Amino acid sequence: MHEIDLSKYRLRTDLIVEHLSKFKDYKKCEEQYKDIKIETITLDKDSAKIVSKKEGIYKTIYFEDVTDEDNFNNLLYVTTCTLKDLFKSIDIKDNYSGLIVGLGNRKATPDALGPLTIDSIKITRQVVELGLPLDSKYRVISSLVPGVMGTTGIETKEIIEGVIEKIKPDFLIVIDALAASSIERINKTIQITDTGIHPGSGLLNNRFEISKETLGLPVIAIGIPTVVDATTIVSNTIDYIFRHFSYEKENINNNKLKLVPLINRDYKSHNNTLNKKEREEVMGLIGNLSDSEIKTLITEVLTPLGYNLLVTPKEIDFVIEKLSLLLSKALNKSLELN
Amino acid sequence: MHEIDLSKYRLRTDLIVEHLSKFKDYKKCEEQYKDIKIETITLDKDSAKIVSKKEGIYKTIYFEDVTDEDNFNNLLYVTTCTLKDLFKSIDIKDNYSGLIVGLGNRKATPDALGPLTIDSIKITRQVVELGLPLDSKYRVISSLVPGVMGTTGIETKEIIEGVIEKIKPDFLIVIDALAASSIERINKTIQITDTGIHPGSGLLNNRFEISKETLGLPVIAIGIPTVVDATTIVSNTIDYIFRHFSYEKENINNNKLKLVPLINRDYKSHNNTLNKKEREEVMGLIGNLSDSEIKTLITEVLTPLGYNLLVTPKEIDFVIEKLSLLLSKALNKSLELN
Amino acid sequence: MHEIDLSKYRLRTDLIVEHLSKFKDYKKCEEQYKDIKIETITLDKDSAKIVSKKEGIYKTIYFEDVTDEDNFNNLLYVTTCTLKDLFKSIDIKDNYSGLIVGLGNRKATPDALGPLTIDSIKITRQVVELGLPLDSKYRVISSLVPGVMGTTGIETKEIIEGVIEKIKPDFLIVIDALAASSIERINKTIQITDTGIHPGSGLLNNRFEISKETLGLPVIAIGIPTVVDATTIVSNTIDYIFRHFSYEKENINNNKLKLVPLINRDYKSHNNTLNKKEREEVMGLIGNLSDSEIKTLITEVLTPLGYNLLVTPKEIDFVIEKLSLLLSKALNKSLELN
Amino acid sequence: MHEIDLSKYRLRTDLIVEHLSKFKDYKKCEEQYKDIKIETITLDKDSAKIVSKKEGIYKTIYFEDVTDEDNFNNLLYVTTCTLKDLFKSIDIKDNYSGLIVGLGNRKATPDALGPLTIDSIKITRQVVELGLPLDSKYRVISSLVPGVMGTTGIETKEIIEGVIEKIKPDFLIVIDALAASSIERINKTIQITDTGIHPGSGLLNNRFEISKETLGLPVIAIGIPTVVDATTIVSNTIDYIFRHFSYEKENINNNKLKLVPLINRDYKSHNNTLNKKEREEVMGLIGNLSDSEIKTLITEVLTPLGYNLLVTPKEIDFVIEKLSLLLSKALNKSLELN
Repeated sequence: MHEIDLSKYRLRTDLIVEHLSKFKDYKKCEEQYKDIKIETITLDKDSAKIVSKKEGIYKTIYFEDVTDEDNFNNLLYVTTCTLKDLFKSIDIKDNYSGLIVGLGNRKATPDALGPLTIDSIKITRQVVELGLPLDSKYRVISSLVPGVMGTTGIETKEIIEGVIEKIKPDFLIVIDALAASSIERINKTIQITDTGIHPGSGLLNNRFEISKETLGLPVIAIGIPTVVDATTIVSNTIDYIFRHFSYEKENINNNKLKLVPLINRDYKSHNNTLNKKEREEVMGLIGNLSDSEIKTLITEVLTPLGYNLLVTPKEIDFVIEKLSLLLSKALNKSLELN
Repeated sequence: MHEIDLSKYRLRTDLIVEHLSKFKDYKKCEEQYKDIKIETITLDKDSAKIVSKKEGIYKTIYFEDVTDEDNFNNLLYVTTCTLKDLFKSIDIKDNYSGLIVGLGNRKATPDALGPLTIDSIKITRQVVELGLPLDSKYRVISSLVPGVMGTTGIETKEIIEGVIEKIKPDFLIVIDALAASSIERINKTIQITDTGIHPGSGLLNNRFEISKETLGLPVIAIGIPTVVDATTIVSNTIDYIFRHFSYEKENINNNKLKLVPLINRDYKSHNNTLNKKEREEVMGLIGNLSDSEIKTLITEVLTPLGYNLLVTPKEIDFVIEKLSLLLSKALNKSLELN
Repeated sequence: MHEIDLSKYRLRTDLIVEHLSKFKDYKKCEEQYKDIKIETITLDKDSAKIVSKKEGIYKTIYFEDVTDEDNFNNLLYVTTCTLKDLFKSIDIKDNYSGLIVGLGNRKATPDALGPLTIDSIKITRQVVELGLPLDSKYRVISSLVPGVMGTTGIETKEIIEGVIEKIKPDFLIVIDALAASSIERINKTIQITDTGIHPGSGLLNNRFEISKETLGLPVIAIGIPTVVDATTIVSNTIDYIFRHFSYEKENINNNKLKLVPLINRDYKSHNNTLNKKEREEVMGLIGNLSDSEIKTLITEVLTPLGYNLLVTPKEIDFVIEKLSLLLSKALNKSLELN
Repeated sequence: MHEIDLSKYRLRTDLIVEHLSKFKDYKKCEEQYKDIKIETITLDKDSAKIVSKKEGIYKTIYFEDVTDEDNFNNLLYVTTCTLKDLFKSIDIKDNYSGLIVGLGNRKATPDALGPLTIDSIKITRQVVELGLPLDSKYRVISSLVPGVMGTTGIETKEIIEGVIEKIKPDFLIVIDALAASSIERINKTIQITDTGIHPGSGLLNNRFEISKETLGLPVIAIGIPTVVDATTIVSNTIDYIFRHFSYEKENINNNKLKLVPLINRDYKSHNNTLNKKEREEVMGLIGNLSDSEIKTLITEVLTPLGYNLLVTPKEIDFVIEKLSLLLSKALNKSLELN
């Protein structure tokens, strides 16, 4: 029973913050607008190597709810500013023409974020192509929905590359739905980076990386996690169980707590203070494993059964509709010339 | 820490088999067609009382995959026969007219099973209403998609009742997507019963029950679980962890097993033989809880955080398309007169 | 050849203005907002008899383009006011609850106006039903999408009637796509009336009329013509040909006209001043027929061939999306209290 | 009034047969399967010049109804054979890989034929790309839905060209919805040719021609007319009016005809035998114009008013669904080896 094979499975997560959360050693700045948090991480060559990520800028926007109209407008404001900031940081000039690419499968709701965003992007390149005058407040913008390899038989990157060679845009924006490694983040995080994207990046090669390195022009990637796997749900829950017990233990002699209904007890942000023995008491052998060992064990248990499902909340249709509207509006505004 | 509040949360599951699996005391017959299993449970007044379910016939079809064409056709055959059997058991006569109701929300993919099934149902009532002759092989069939209370503001049952009073069908068929309490069952089970349906039945009253008792005509309910909650995913996984350890323990001295890759070790159907002490060793305090206590604990931990999400597999769009096609074909065939 | 059978075919048009345009004898008032015209016709018992229409108020909004954002907002303003006016005229009180019904077939784009409008209506009745407090600025509103007889097998009116008997609203609003008898009006007219609606009213009976008379509560009907038949296209064109020749004839000695490109010559609003002989010269026998005789002839020619198609402009998907958004926003605003 | 400007407008029609019907001088062979007609026209260099079309093979399938299941299956059989014939004629070898392109706009129903067809095409190229073995009965097939310039800002041809340069297929198949110049043909004709396609070809240049000449590989174009303009509807109707009068005139003394209801009188295929004077009697000045002069006049009258609408039958959603299913099934079968 101690022979558990802990060979590391590649975690199915694309969110940089989750990777970095294991490290302490990087430059990070945080801003806040109402209840929306914006985190900017800049990795130079050295810090990038430490976290095995690419050098560049990673901006993450955390929000709680996009369906309420006020929240939507606040988030739209934040996302627009964040995009403008990034465009400025990487020197996207006013006369640069952009190609916006919606990755993913239009027919699979949680994967349709990219295509649906493209549906509402303001396209202007055809005006110029037809020899007509373009309103001075707009850039030259075109768009592409390449589809997914499973339905086209063609690598996404090949399609993008082919089109780039024909129309020669000055920069690329790619939008994609991501997998999260935390329940907390699903449909509640926007990641914006100048380091590009790695569709289905599990294969450990960069053959299909869509980035400045592989395509030769600035690539801004915008991603929102819309799915999570069962392993993550279970390992997150085990973590919450520890926090729950830790919280209850610390407050065991606090008579006031007994008056607080279970549902209002705040152990989410409570630091797990159980010691090794206590963890073992709660969860036995599992209590002795590190977070990543727990994940590995769960993956090991669920994968052979075919139950390490990638799942999405049942309201996904409404959420995707809102999120794609948000991204298209934020892109339209941030791409306008003042 | 031993003061865990185990007051029972109502489990969000609509699948009868899962309820009954805790009991041994009912009449059950099983059939098999290729890899499809059909289970029929008949509850008389007494056994119904024991399991707190309604008296009647519960037929459950278990299948593995509906996307392959051969499997689809086998499943279509089985579902058609099962429906015919039930129609016969409850004496649906050839001259009976039927109203088929697709419950759920067309715009939320995992909840769209009912409306999408209706889209392909063969409707004949208008022929009769227009005074035209109806082909003798067809019954008089009409359909209704009432929508959900959240978007109509009207209880589903009120709409159905209103229409029934106008068109006076002889029997009702209702189709709905369900929540499962087992990962294994999602998109892989069809439940057919003559006991009706209880939309959003968590409220513990029968005000909105759609059944023979409340509507005065036979009601056949057809349901497929398309969502599952996080609590279920976690508690199922904990169960699999026990089975996994139990299996490994039993085979610890079996040298041949070492040659079997992890992914091929068959502990899914392995009976958990860990004793109390071994369970505790693996999972500490959790190991000492019964299945339902574990569920309660997890619900207690996740619900206050807002993380007891109802989720659906990310391929849901394709699966729902296939399942609704399956149900409409099976209904069309089984409702035909020989 | 002079024996043309001129027995009148029932014209497939639901737009009151087109009927009335043949008569001079009714009360009419016109307003204008930017380039949008609002026409209000009030028929009392006598004038109603003359035009074979129902007694009541008929409001028609004429607009040119709904896809431009400014036009959309102007039209939204006008439609909201017009609805409020009508609600006031027929004494819809603040405490009245309303049921809004979207007629038509969601799956046939030009017929989907009703269902799509319902999708964005603000529904509040469920709040009251669940025993929760309703914000004082909202009425109690519910909605229904009954489908069409061809796919449900049930008369629309039966479904509506059944639901009304259950939930007892104080007034009804029905939304439907119409057929126009003029090319000019397609997707460019909104008709609002308190006289109800006659779905598929060609059958010359009122069995399925949805109105105060048949349902016992105020019924406001909102319709937009989205289809037109080939007969109308041809007869309209013949009328334009006459105007064209008339215009050219009148200006034959106007040397300045020769400088005006054909495409800018304004004969649309030009009154056809050709005399009988001139009409005959242009169109022979056809030139001698009245407008309605020409329509009859064309119908006679096209119908046996199966070519009297009902058609819709090829951009219908975008137009229906805008129009349904317009109606839902106008309804939401006009139904708010104060 | 005799100064009508008859400068030829370019007719908005893409169907070769309509062009050729004006000429007698080409090789043509006809086949029949049940009530489906297949016409093959082969233009060599000389005959191509005469009709101002490209040299190549033009196959046209005429059918009446695609919604009935038997008709669908017959048409599927014919379309599959016709495609196989063409593949053989232009020497598409078994080891050739193909790229299938769905032109048009997925979001405009009558223009969605191409994208919807692609949705059900069997794609195999990804199998080979992933290094897996491909079942010997399949070719290497990939697909592309490039979108339309209005929404992407990129010429369709540029996207196709870019992708071809990357994946180097051996032949191309493009599918598109067409405009018809005859009411009879809408949704009832399939044109298959090896001469390629000219999207929005009205501009009289070949900059965006998708053909062997411009792309350097065999290009098979499959088109179905789904829209028609008002000019065509009117000019077709005028033609039918002449036939109608001609038919009635010829049968004026046939007493039996009086017993035939108007709706059953067969003048559709009746040859218009009216002489000049009779035509003038029926239609005055219009009666003296040739068919193309009539078209020109109508275009001249309708275009300045903005009423030369491109329209589509109101059932277009259902028809497009069936036609795209038909094309995808026919392509899948005809592309299989053996």
